[in-house]
Amino acid sequence: MRGTVLHAPGDIRVEDRPDPKIVEPTDAIIRLSATCICGSDLWPYRGIDGSDGPAPMGHEYCGIVEEVGSDVTTVRPGQFVVGSFFASDNTCEICRAGYQSSCVHREPVGAIGTQAEYARIPLADGTLVATPEMPPQDMVPDLLSASDVLGTGWFGAEAAEAGSGKTVAVVGDGAVGLLAVLAARQLGAERIIAMSRHEPRQRLAEEFGATEIVTERGDEGAQRIKELTDGLGAHSVVEAVGTQESMMQAIRSTRAGGHVGFVGVLHGVEIPGQEFFFSHVHLHGGPAPVRRFLPELIDLIWNREIEPGKVFDLTLPLEEAAEGYRAMDERRAIKTLLRP
Amino acid sequence: MRGTVLHAPGDIRVEDRPDPKIVEPTDAIIRLSATCICGSDLWPYRGIDGSDGPAPMGHEYCGIVEEVGSDVTTVRPGQFVVGSFFASDNTCEICRAGYQSSCVHREPVGAIGTQAEYARIPLADGTLVATPEMPPQDMVPDLLSASDVLGTGWFGAEAAEAGSGKTVAVVGDGAVGLLAVLAARQLGAERIIAMSRHEPRQRLAEEFGATEIVTERGDEGAQRIKELTDGLGAHSVVEAVGTQESMMQAIRSTRAGGHVGFVGVLHGVEIPGQEFFFSHVHLHGGPAPVRRFLPELIDLIWNREIEPGKVFDLTLPLEEAAEGYRAMDERRAIKTLLRP
Repeated sequence: MRGTVLHAPGDIRVEDRPDPKIVEPTDAIIRLSATCICGSDLWPYRGIDGSDGPAPMGHEYCGIVEEVGSDVTTVRPGQFVVGSFFASDNTCEICRAGYQSSCVHREPVGAIGTQAEYARIPLADGTLVATPEMPPQDMVPDLLSASDVLGTGWFGAEAAEAGSGKTVAVVGDGAVGLLAVLAARQLGAERIIAMSRHEPRQRLAEEFGATEIVTERGDEGAQRIKELTDGLGAHSVVEAVGTQESMMQAIRSTRAGGHVGFVGVLHGVEIPGQEFFFSHVHLHGGPAPVRRFLPELIDLIWNREIEPGKVFDLTLPLEEAAEGYRAMDERRAIKTLLRP
Repeated sequence: MRGTVLHAPGDIRVEDRPDPKIVEPTDAIIRLSATCICGSDLWPYRGIDGSDGPAPMGHEYCGIVEEVGSDVTTVRPGQFVVGSFFASDNTCEICRAGYQSSCVHREPVGAIGTQAEYARIPLADGTLVATPEMPPQDMVPDLLSASDVLGTGWFGAEAAEAGSGKTVAVVGDGAVGLLAVLAARQLGAERIIAMSRHEPRQRLAEEFGATEIVTERGDEGAQRIKELTDGLGAHSVVEAVGTQESMMQAIRSTRAGGHVGFVGVLHGVEIPGQEFFFSHVHLHGGPAPVRRFLPELIDLIWNREIEPGKVFDLTLPLEEAAEGYRAMDERRAIKTLLRP
C-alpha cells in the first residue's frame, strides 16, 4: 500500500509500505476513506521533536472495516468507523473514568501511521465507533475530524468547563482552537472570545460561534480579555497552541476560580508555581480522550447539527501529502485532508 | 498593646505597638482570644521571603468584637468571631463564586499582624463569622484553626476532589497536611494515605482519619502510592508543602484524570509542562478561600464533630512568641498557639 513517511525534517515522502495484517485478535484493519495532517505532525516535520530514522506519519482516520481479529465483537467488516488517536481497551478503570488516552493498555495510533491506504487499529472494540450506516461522501470530513481535532477541541472546552452562562476565551486559531469555539457553543457558553489575527480564521471562528474576536497576543491579549470581562478574566480559557507564551496568555486571561483547559502539546513550557498559586486557576488538559466523546460527536455530525469538517480548507490526494505539510507549515492552510 | 514584630530573619520580638483603631466604616476591632504561628510565617522567619524592615506578624485569629465601624451590620461588640486570613467583601463576583481570598477588594490580614492583643479587621461583614454563643475555653483552639490551617487543609481536600469512594494521598505532615486528612475523612474519602515519617504526626494523622501511612518521599513516595493503588495512583492528592519535590511527588502520585489540590505556598517551583500534559492530572489550589468554608467549619466544631485544635501541640503566652517560632522552625512543635 501507499503511505507517508517522514525521512528527515521537512522530508515527507509517499512510498510503498507493507500492507497491514491482523497481529492481535483484538485488531481491526480499516481501509481509509480520509486521513489528514495534524498540527502536532508539524513538530517532527519542523525537527522540534527528534525522531530517529524514517517514521510513518498520521494518527487521524476514518474508513471502512476490512477485517477484524477473532476477539473483536463490536465492529464488523463493511462498517464505517471512526477511532481515536490512542487505541484503548475502554474497560480499564482509567477508561471508565473517561481518560481513554491514558488507558493502561493504550497504544499510540501514530506509531502505525494512518496517512496511508490501510491501517491496523489495535484494541478495535475499545477504540472504534461505527456510524449508523454508510455516511454520505460530504459527511466524511466531519467524521474524520472527530478522530482527533474535533475531539481535542471538545476536550479543551470540557476541561475549561465551558458551559451555560460562561465567558470562554480560546487561545490559538488553529483547527483545534477553532473547534474548541464550536465545542464551547455546543456546551452552551454565553460569550466566546476567539483570539486570532488571521482574517479567514476569524471568519470561521465566527461561523463556529465566536461572539468576539481579540487580535492582541501574550500579556496584551490577556489584558484585553480582562477589559472585556469587568477586569476579572474569562471563566474558561482553552489553550490550543502549546508554547510558554500561549500558556501564560491562557492563565493570565482566566479569572480566579476559573478553568484553563489545555490541549496544545506543551513544548518547553514551565508553569511558574508562585504565579499559578496566586492565580487561583484550575488547570487540566493533555492528550484528548477522544473515545469518551466519539459517540456524542458522531451523533451531532450524523444529525447535521455541527459541521466541524469546515476546518479542512485544503484537500489533496494522499500522493501529494508533502504539499499538504508545506501548506500547513507556512500557514497557507488551516488543515489538510488527504484522500487515499 | 503588645504584638510580635519580625526585625530580621530569626529575630522575632514582642513589643509595644499602637492600639488599632477603626479606619474605615467597614472595620471591626477584635480582642484576640488566641492566635498562632503559621507554617508560612516560617518563610520570612527563615529569610526566604524577603521583607524590608520590621514587620508585624500573624494572620490567624479569633476573639471578641470590641468595636465596629458604622457600616458593619453582621457582627456586633461582644460576639465571638472567627475570620479568614484575607479580608473580603464576600459580595463581588469572585467571592460569590467561592474565591474570597481573591476578592476584588481583598486585604491581607497578615499586613496587620494578628499575633497581638488586638487587631483591626477590614471588611468585617464579609470576613468575620460569629459563633452561636460565647464558646467554652477548650473549643477556642478548634475555632482558631478554622481561621487558616483547617480552612487551608479543607480547601486542599476540596480542590483535590476528595470524596466518597476516593483514595486520597496527602503530601506533607505539617498542620495543614494533617487537617487535609481530617477534611478528606469528613468529605467521605474511602482510603486516606498520609505521607509522613514522623511518628507523633503519623499518630495524629491516624487520629484524624488516615487509613495508611507512607514513609517514603519524592519519587519513591509516588511509587509507593502507585503500588497501593493497582499501579494507577491516588484519585486525589493534597500538596501541603510547596517545594518542587513535594509538588512533583503529588503530581506523580495521582492517577490520570485525578486531582491535585495544592495549598503549600509554592516557592521556586516550576511545573514541567510536557510531563504535566501527559499526566492528565487536574491541578488547582492557591490561598484557601477560608471564608467559603467558615460557616460549615464553625458548625462542625460547635457540634464537636471535629477537633482540629489538636494540631496545636505547644501553647505559649504571646510574650514567648520567639520560642514558639523556634519550636516550629526546629520541628519540635507541629503548631504553636499563642495566648495574648
